[in-house]
Amino acid sequence: MVKYAASLDTTFGALADPTRRAILATLMQGQASITELARPHRMSLPAVMKHLRVLQQAGLVSQKKTGRTRHCRLQHAQPLKEAEEWLSHYRVFWERQFDALERFLQEEETKEKTKWQHRNRNPKPHCN
Amino acid sequence: MVKYAASLDTTFGALADPTRRAILATLMQGQASITELARPHRMSLPAVMKHLRVLQQAGLVSQKKTGRTRHCRLQHAQPLKEAEEWLSHYRVFWERQFDALERFLQEEETKEKTKWQHRNRNPKPHCN
Repeated sequence: MVKYAASLDTTFGALADPTRRAILATLMQGQASITELARPHRMSLPAVMKHLRVLQQAGLVSQKKTGRTRHCRLQHAQPLKEAEEWLSHYRVFWERQFDALERFLQEEETKEKTKWQHRNRNPKPHCN
Repeated sequence: MVKYAASLDTTFGALADPTRRAILATLMQGQASITELARPHRMSLPAVMKHLRVLQQAGLVSQKKTGRTRHCRLQHAQPLKEAEEWLSHYRVFWERQFDALERFLQEEETKEKTKWQHRNRNPKPHCN
């Protein structure tokens, strides 16, 4: 049995790999065997099992043996929830940044409009 | 200049360390010098600078030299926003899990109540 030591370190560490994120996405649809999980990644079974161990250590995935097949499924929701909560504290930062960008774009638009109106009020004299 | 290659891999990788998360938390309050960032961690400056490089590579932090002091500040919001968005897809998973827990607790409560009512309606005869 793989020990489950949930912490933001292990959760973020587990998520820092595209194969492991893809495994989680597959398991969101329901349980799957290790062979099914390995198929889309063109990886050896031992390589997939290594990724699964990292996900198990983070408490995200569990395995159960049924006959000769090992089935995996999403296990604990808490680590993902905690990671999302941690990130949500920074929402104020990205909202501030996107607000600043929006303000900048609005100011640019106003400047362009003013220029255009000024040009229309004071057209260049025709030279013919 | 440290190259900024934002991806979920680099973002989650950067967040998988308590010192780096603490640096981000400090920089949420405003910019800080490297010495100020190192102080609470009892770390050497090179060790802190190593962490800062990881945060810079993830596009989360930028440095600016003013005189002899290097100031750091939060840089791009986009990587954190993308990481939060990725995690939010799993909200349905943890909400389902917490709903199941709530249902279980309610069922247990109902069972306890039924037992209690049954006992009150059929009290044991006194033996005195």
